[in-house]
Amino acid sequence: MSFSPLVEQLMDALRVLPGVGPRTAQRMAMHLLERNREGGERLAGVLREAVERVGYCQRCRTLTEEPLCTLCQSPRRDDRLLCVVESPADMLAMEEAGGYQGRYFVLHGHLSPLDGIGPEDIGLDQLEAIIAEGKVEEVVLATNPTVEGEATAHYIATQIEAHGARLSRLAYGVPMGGELEYVDGGTLSRAFSGRLPFAGE
Amino acid sequence: MSFSPLVEQLMDALRVLPGVGPRTAQRMAMHLLERNREGGERLAGVLREAVERVGYCQRCRTLTEEPLCTLCQSPRRDDRLLCVVESPADMLAMEEAGGYQGRYFVLHGHLSPLDGIGPEDIGLDQLEAIIAEGKVEEVVLATNPTVEGEATAHYIATQIEAHGARLSRLAYGVPMGGELEYVDGGTLSRAFSGRLPFAGE
Ligand SMILES: [Zn+2]
Ligand SMILES: [Zn+2]
Repeated sequence: MSFSPLVEQLMDALRVLPGVGPRTAQRMAMHLLERNREGGERLAGVLREAVERVGYCQRCRTLTEEPLCTLCQSPRRDDRLLCVVESPADMLAMEEAGGYQGRYFVLHGHLSPLDGIGPEDIGLDQLEAIIAEGKVEEVVLATNPTVEGEATAHYIATQIEAHGARLSRLAYGVPMGGELEYVDGGTLSRAFSGRLPFAGE
Repeated sequence: MSFSPLVEQLMDALRVLPGVGPRTAQRMAMHLLERNREGGERLAGVLREAVERVGYCQRCRTLTEEPLCTLCQSPRRDDRLLCVVESPADMLAMEEAGGYQGRYFVLHGHLSPLDGIGPEDIGLDQLEAIIAEGKVEEVVLATNPTVEGEATAHYIATQIEAHGARLSRLAYGVPMGGELEYVDGGTLSRAFSGRLPFAGE
């Protein structure tokens, strides 16, 4: 015996959420159907709209439903500084840490040849085009302090050093092997102000 | 700074899910938008359909998108036994425990005067009508072994004893204060076969 086909489909569909196994999916489905149909209806509507309408900012590639994100639209950010991050969540973490006034560029991942993720997949052609405009004086390579993040930073450094912008990397202080998104604001802020020239290998 | 309005709305909507706080909602939203839009689209569709189409079985009140659930449609279940449970998840747990061949009735909760949940809200008029048909010889009061579940069982017992059906309660073996849904199949099965006549106060 099992639940009705549609209820089973719902439990199955909920398992696309990270960290949700069969038991949690059942609890979630029961909660929505038994106690909060209005919330379920709203979630369904917002989720469909977000999946359909949220795309990448044409300039920095962060997630937005507009052609340009709020930050790229702002005239108050410093065009001479460009911070390259792996994800929109990393960008938000940097903003919440405070103190940074430049622009961003979001890779949505890192280079991963084994998974077939190459330079174009993480927007490096677009990043190079921005640097080639000549306004950026310093590129902060704020990819995650992981093996893949470091390798991606090295690749980007090699690709853009010909354009003459200074390259830097977040200072030690960011815990090695961790993910930027989960670093507390204070550490992140200190790591940023103590950033070092990017040295390559 | 925050994410774009639609992304913020999505994180907010995800918080209707039980156990999902701001951090988890952000992780879920990023996962869906960055890595699994197809899964997100599917979840949105199934969720909307389920919230709109899944109702209560006309006979036993379990969740189903059909007028009658599979179990109520089955000619192979014993009409002389009726097991009253608080939720569809409890019904599934009983079925998975095995050994029970009768019918069910689902309350979708328990009596809770302080929350304004009275007899009609948990379908007791409908339950009495089923008992009044005269086919049911034994009613197993399988509400949760909690204060509210016990109180609800007592109320039902008082309401239906005039119709002459035997009343029983799951045997001790079900852990006191626990929720039926999380009891392992073996315990549940043993508690069922050792069920006792319902004694009232
Ligand atoms: Zn942007
Ligand atoms: Zn039914």
